[in-house]
Amino acid sequence: MKIAVDAMGGDYAPEEIVKGALRAAEANSELHLLLVGQKERIQPFLSGSCPDNLSLVEASEVVEMGEHPANAVRKKKDSSIVVATRLVKQGDADALISAGSTGAQMAASLLGLGRIKGIERPAIATVLPTAQGGKLVLDVGANLDASPEQLCQYGLMGSVYAEKILGIPKPRVALLNIGSEEGKGNDLTQKAYGLLKNAPLNFLGNIEGRDVPFGRADVVVCEGFVGNVLLKTAEGLAGALFEQIKEKITSTALRKLGALAVKPGLKEIAQMMDYAEYGGAPLLGVNGISIICHGSSKSKAIFNAVRVARECVQIQLLEQIKSNLPK
Amino acid sequence: MKIAVDAMGGDYAPEEIVKGALRAAEANSELHLLLVGQKERIQPFLSGSCPDNLSLVEASEVVEMGEHPANAVRKKKDSSIVVATRLVKQGDADALISAGSTGAQMAASLLGLGRIKGIERPAIATVLPTAQGGKLVLDVGANLDASPEQLCQYGLMGSVYAEKILGIPKPRVALLNIGSEEGKGNDLTQKAYGLLKNAPLNFLGNIEGRDVPFGRADVVVCEGFVGNVLLKTAEGLAGALFEQIKEKITSTALRKLGALAVKPGLKEIAQMMDYAEYGGAPLLGVNGISIICHGSSKSKAIFNAVRVARECVQIQLLEQIKSNLPK
Repeated sequence: MKIAVDAMGGDYAPEEIVKGALRAAEANSELHLLLVGQKERIQPFLSGSCPDNLSLVEASEVVEMGEHPANAVRKKKDSSIVVATRLVKQGDADALISAGSTGAQMAASLLGLGRIKGIERPAIATVLPTAQGGKLVLDVGANLDASPEQLCQYGLMGSVYAEKILGIPKPRVALLNIGSEEGKGNDLTQKAYGLLKNAPLNFLGNIEGRDVPFGRADVVVCEGFVGNVLLKTAEGLAGALFEQIKEKITSTALRKLGALAVKPGLKEIAQMMDYAEYGGAPLLGVNGISIICHGSSKSKAIFNAVRVARECVQIQLLEQIKSNLPK
Repeated sequence: MKIAVDAMGGDYAPEEIVKGALRAAEANSELHLLLVGQKERIQPFLSGSCPDNLSLVEASEVVEMGEHPANAVRKKKDSSIVVATRLVKQGDADALISAGSTGAQMAASLLGLGRIKGIERPAIATVLPTAQGGKLVLDVGANLDASPEQLCQYGLMGSVYAEKILGIPKPRVALLNIGSEEGKGNDLTQKAYGLLKNAPLNFLGNIEGRDVPFGRADVVVCEGFVGNVLLKTAEGLAGALFEQIKEKITSTALRKLGALAVKPGLKEIAQMMDYAEYGGAPLLGVNGISIICHGSSKSKAIFNAVRVARECVQIQLLEQIKSNLPK
């Protein structure tokens, strides 16, 4: 199995990307990793010791974060994200991962790989860590304004992903809404409710924002704008709270002593909340495996994203999604 | 000053509502509280000792949580929420507060009090507790699908409220969006950005969900559906995290000992995050002071909501909003 890694994308590229890919190559001898990017900028981080199952693929250009995604992808045909996508398209790689511009990766994936038949728009599916395990939220920003039909398609794709990749049998799918009763919400959610209810899903009904962090659904369906706000608010609130906790439990000598004792417990929570453990978010609905990593990904996140990509290929995610869509 | 309190609305009505009103009456001798509802159900909780500045106003009906808000308000003309609103309309009270059905309160306020000229739709403005103090988020659910113009009106009203009631000079107003740069977002936020930028506001630009809990804006503007998700997700995540913390810092004998020492620090945070401290959320844009309380409000929240109502009347919130709207 070959996995293409965009070495030039992300806040810590190429160093952390290369490190993560190296670790993944060493840990998975059956994989072959293709590091895509500017060789002279990648090589310094390989420090001579390039394992046999890792090779470089030259791509002379880089799509920068500030560029207009679709325009950049159309113009920069030799950029790392476009070349990595082309490898998948041509069958020279089974999946790609990138921590670069999400918009550029979406554009490259849509243009290069196309959509799965029956899916109108792809969705970014992110794992939200909870005490009940990772739960899937989609879409978190691929498609800002969705239609009821598209929300239903997210539910169908998300259910397959949660079952096959997160290992949740019969995933409970819920529609993010402002109230739990049927009939609540705006026009979009009212219509989507009926479609999801009649789809071949384990549909729970509506879920409110306050129930999501408790893991009360395995797959939370929403349009991209709302999912993006949910995800980032959760991330921000966890960060703000931990900052406060750190300050408040060390504000006196006695508390400092107590903090030493409880620190391992807090670390367990921080680890549970660590997005890097989940590696990356699949762009579901495109006709190829395309894993989106957080822009601030370090080597651990890249390592885990390679694992996610590998699993998606192994379980034949695309075929699974296709066979789960209504004929 | 007279404040009407819907004694029948809320999960803990009438007991906790009556208790909160009693406390408020005792603490504010210059106020006169009007407890609106079924006298025979209220009286047991007054235990004979009714202060001079608290009186009962009979309302024979109650709008239940499951009822269709607008229909219930139209039909039940002698319900506590309709009677409390009518007191304000007729000038027999200066403000009303309720912990009952939010939909019913909105319908009663809109039908009974009307809108401020220049405001198309009212917005529920909620205080989100942060380490940098309470920050205002609006709308959190009065108007699920807003127009760009309406978002701009929220900004103008929210700015006045943040300055006059939360005591923040020149409040920094931001538009909730999926990215921070101008031009990001869906059609709604792209258009609203231009309007907010040109309004007489201290407009910061876009804010992402992750920056909201850090208090990086004083007023966060969004449409009702999104604001509702943001608020409830924050509430849920804080709850889920504290549940985890409680479990993890007491899971061994040593940690339990440490937990004793750090507990006061964690309590300080829990208190900071306590919504009840902020009492209630004003329904901004209706032509009268109408304070919405959380359905699960206990006496402390009602006590604080009375304080909020009093302050809104004292600073002449309606006049302030009117004078801040573009002519």
